[in-house]
Amino acid sequence: MNIADIHSPADIKGRSVNELTSICADLRKVLIQKLAAHGGHVGPNLGFLEATVALHYVFDAPTDRIVFDVSHQTYVHKMLTGRIRAFLDAACYDDVTGFTSPEESPYDLFAIGHTSTSVSLASGLAKARDLKGETHNVVAVIGDGSLSGGEAFEGLDYAATLKSNFIVVVNDNQMSIAPNEGSLYDNLALLRQTSGQATDNYFKSLGYDYLYVADGNNLESLIAAFRKVKDSTKPVVVHLNTEKGMGLPVAQEHKEAFHFHGPFDPVTGQASAPAAKGYTDIFAEKMLEAIKANPSTVVITAGVPGAVGFGPAQRAQAGKNFVDVGIAEEQAVAMASGLAKEGCTPVVAEPSTFIQRAYDQLSQDVSINRQSALFVTFYGSVWGMNDCTHLGFFDVPMISNIPGILFLAPTCVEEYLAMLEWAMAQKNTPVLVRTPGGRIVNRVGDFNVDYSTVGYETVRAGKDVAIIAAGDFLPLAQQAASLMEAKGLDPMVINPRYMSHLDTATLDSLRDFRLVITLEDNSVDGGLGQKIAAYLGSAPVNVKVLGLPKAFPDRYRAADLLASCGLTPEAIASLA
Amino acid sequence: MNIADIHSPADIKGRSVNELTSICADLRKVLIQKLAAHGGHVGPNLGFLEATVALHYVFDAPTDRIVFDVSHQTYVHKMLTGRIRAFLDAACYDDVTGFTSPEESPYDLFAIGHTSTSVSLASGLAKARDLKGETHNVVAVIGDGSLSGGEAFEGLDYAATLKSNFIVVVNDNQMSIAPNEGSLYDNLALLRQTSGQATDNYFKSLGYDYLYVADGNNLESLIAAFRKVKDSTKPVVVHLNTEKGMGLPVAQEHKEAFHFHGPFDPVTGQASAPAAKGYTDIFAEKMLEAIKANPSTVVITAGVPGAVGFGPAQRAQAGKNFVDVGIAEEQAVAMASGLAKEGCTPVVAEPSTFIQRAYDQLSQDVSINRQSALFVTFYGSVWGMNDCTHLGFFDVPMISNIPGILFLAPTCVEEYLAMLEWAMAQKNTPVLVRTPGGRIVNRVGDFNVDYSTVGYETVRAGKDVAIIAAGDFLPLAQQAASLMEAKGLDPMVINPRYMSHLDTATLDSLRDFRLVITLEDNSVDGGLGQKIAAYLGSAPVNVKVLGLPKAFPDRYRAADLLASCGLTPEAIASLA
Repeated sequence: MNIADIHSPADIKGRSVNELTSICADLRKVLIQKLAAHGGHVGPNLGFLEATVALHYVFDAPTDRIVFDVSHQTYVHKMLTGRIRAFLDAACYDDVTGFTSPEESPYDLFAIGHTSTSVSLASGLAKARDLKGETHNVVAVIGDGSLSGGEAFEGLDYAATLKSNFIVVVNDNQMSIAPNEGSLYDNLALLRQTSGQATDNYFKSLGYDYLYVADGNNLESLIAAFRKVKDSTKPVVVHLNTEKGMGLPVAQEHKEAFHFHGPFDPVTGQASAPAAKGYTDIFAEKMLEAIKANPSTVVITAGVPGAVGFGPAQRAQAGKNFVDVGIAEEQAVAMASGLAKEGCTPVVAEPSTFIQRAYDQLSQDVSINRQSALFVTFYGSVWGMNDCTHLGFFDVPMISNIPGILFLAPTCVEEYLAMLEWAMAQKNTPVLVRTPGGRIVNRVGDFNVDYSTVGYETVRAGKDVAIIAAGDFLPLAQQAASLMEAKGLDPMVINPRYMSHLDTATLDSLRDFRLVITLEDNSVDGGLGQKIAAYLGSAPVNVKVLGLPKAFPDRYRAADLLASCGLTPEAIASLA
Repeated sequence: MNIADIHSPADIKGRSVNELTSICADLRKVLIQKLAAHGGHVGPNLGFLEATVALHYVFDAPTDRIVFDVSHQTYVHKMLTGRIRAFLDAACYDDVTGFTSPEESPYDLFAIGHTSTSVSLASGLAKARDLKGETHNVVAVIGDGSLSGGEAFEGLDYAATLKSNFIVVVNDNQMSIAPNEGSLYDNLALLRQTSGQATDNYFKSLGYDYLYVADGNNLESLIAAFRKVKDSTKPVVVHLNTEKGMGLPVAQEHKEAFHFHGPFDPVTGQASAPAAKGYTDIFAEKMLEAIKANPSTVVITAGVPGAVGFGPAQRAQAGKNFVDVGIAEEQAVAMASGLAKEGCTPVVAEPSTFIQRAYDQLSQDVSINRQSALFVTFYGSVWGMNDCTHLGFFDVPMISNIPGILFLAPTCVEEYLAMLEWAMAQKNTPVLVRTPGGRIVNRVGDFNVDYSTVGYETVRAGKDVAIIAAGDFLPLAQQAASLMEAKGLDPMVINPRYMSHLDTATLDSLRDFRLVITLEDNSVDGGLGQKIAAYLGSAPVNVKVLGLPKAFPDRYRAADLLASCGLTPEAIASLA
């Protein structure tokens, strides 16, 4: 059949394995075409192609519930559930998101983007089914990489107690984004080596029946396995040994680089647009220097080394001073507390969207214990990841309100480096440094100050009107100030440096100004501007608080979102 | 020896088992005496008494690092490490906290109070040791109940990859606070039944050597086991089968009630002061009604049923409509999303201090997906738990700033019940209802309103001065208003109802007031008052924001803390 005619899973049901094999070949060809032209999650989707076809062939979605972990591997699922045009027609490539989306299709149960949640979410679906006396299958798909997350364990531990139909499909492609980290992966390796026969089976220890599929890219094996567990009345794990990037040699060879990739040449793998040097590179260089200077420096990440500048080369250079704990943010943060307790210098590097998985550890394990761990967040910015599931807007409200954490927002490379340097040298307080998210900014200034004394930087002296602009919104403030200047005003521009603490002396000096405008590159609720407004609540000065919305905008354009929040030089200047 | 002469673990080293047995008897006697007179964690400490003695007998703390999970089982540890007077002398009972505290003793490595953190914290200590080339033992003590927490799994999964000395002592007393929930516990049961011989051993699946101690209250067995693993060069789990409440019959019989208990008669177990009916009882009654009226209602808690009003009797009554997922807050929250997706009415009941373990799930699994789950927090108040590790002050800054969650703060029983009722009936939005923390308040009013339309309640009409008092600070505002009235003022008193959303119409009506005072029973940073101040930032009105500090005060007296924050009727009245 022509895959353009697949409108729903019904269109592939009842077909022969030969037909399905040919459909898979066509799906793969089209998928590679789109991936090469558009970019996306390359390896996960190619590796799970046959399994997706087999799932929809055997199970009856949406009556049977299929929850995909992270859901970055659902491109083929989308192709089979009425959205194939978004893969066939380049003009429609952006009609679908990169993750499951209930707004797109009833086959997509949840908007998901973080790892390790599918089993827990599915356990709720299963409990509801059992309460209502329904009988459909509940299937949770989860990658081996996601199994290291605590939520996945909590879900597995609980779901088996339902003692009813609950099918966990483990897509074991022997990779997380980067290589897997965790002792569990030795267990999975042993299970693969023994065709699932090894004792001390992790899944069996948690009460699951267990089925191993040695070739998880083989349709016949997959269909046979799924048929075997369909309508099971007990919790069961189907462990698939799949090949990440299957069918695209360059992706099979460079699994980490092709987990997610921008547009590329499908033969050579060459990126269509070479990456410019960014803050992650600057961070990694600084850390490698720090490790050399002080061998008790330990850079920690939770499953996302590449996203924080630590590709294979940097990891090799850092050696035992770089720790990837696997997708396990709670572990990363608590472990940092332990390292700091022994006088080491732990640096936890995480995208803003993922560090929110460790609120309690930041509060309890680190802050109450006043451990001098350093946290460095990335993509916490309007210019960061723009899927609704990956926004970085919330680290400021979430973390800056935890007692005892000094939350710093550098405005340029020089200040970033100085803050990292200072934070690593001191032993008194946990510190968070928010990596700027915009384009690289360089400034001349006196950044090597003692950040334990809260003080704002006056970037432009002025009177009557002050703009307090945090982090990478400083250039915006400077542009607005220029416009104000053109109107005959003399605005002050302030870099507040701190998102968690106020420089009350400087704020007091603004009490009789006409207007203070605050700008912050994060969700404005619970942020810095509101603290400043409260501090100046009894002063004559007017305070206007600007920042990103308290919302989950999806795949927005930064310029549009900024404009909708009044965050343009013109709109800001017009306030004065 | 007289236990009063134990000043450090050195004092018990080298003694015979007979001597140690007699020391244990004396420690137990003194411990029961204090527990009965003072209250505390009864079962955990009595059950781990011999193991604590054996640990300090075999290992050399503080050179060897011992990290206690939750650390509520460290009373005997404190008795052996220079703090026995706080157990012998009633006048000194409060000289020590109920948890480990580095401020008290170098034998206490961390201030801990939440579960499931010991392995992760200890992994940092072990990594530091290995980096520095040191050779001491690192021991993580963890209860069976704590193993269901994701952080414990993440820690176990990572720590074994260090492939160096790492000793996990599992104190398996076959109980969490309440009975254990999770399929892992079938595995532990099987290991106990087979004296540790069963295949599919959870700990072995994660790469640990494994040693089983059948009688975890037998000194000889314990000493032999700890000697065997001391200086191990590989990660190893020592699985102790202990008896919670050992040596106090009433605690052995009523394990859940005597996990933590106020002062009691050591023979009858009778509480010295009978518990008054509180908000947890009101909550549980309401939920049992709701379950009867709507069998798709599911009340979920993560390991703390008793703390939310669901003792054994209420659980029996609720049947399959009550779910304890074990200590697994991420699972509780994500599962609620799944239940709501299927049209059920999930109600997650958690102490404020513990729900902070599920920030990401509240944001991702629930809010982005706009699932109409209801969250009910407890002890989120100055009158809640007052150990620095158990404060409930932070739920407002943490959760009220997550987009899409309607955060309600009822001021009295009637409003509490109306909000719960409304939240369960609607299907549009996630809702959090913050259970009041002060004494029971009853009010007459029109509380059965549609809370989807944000609107404040005017409790007292007035002019010039307004007090906006959230949740259980309303009586405080009313008292302050009375004092203002006596000064000839006519203050308005407002119940804002919402911590997450502003009633802008009402706030606009206050723009030309002289003063708005906001009161909130939570850490003020990131809270409601700062939002109000920002909203009114350009209005002539002065705004004063009052609330609890951004700090982790330990074992404070509520009256003192309130006074230090200006939260007395007199101090508030003096602002006007």
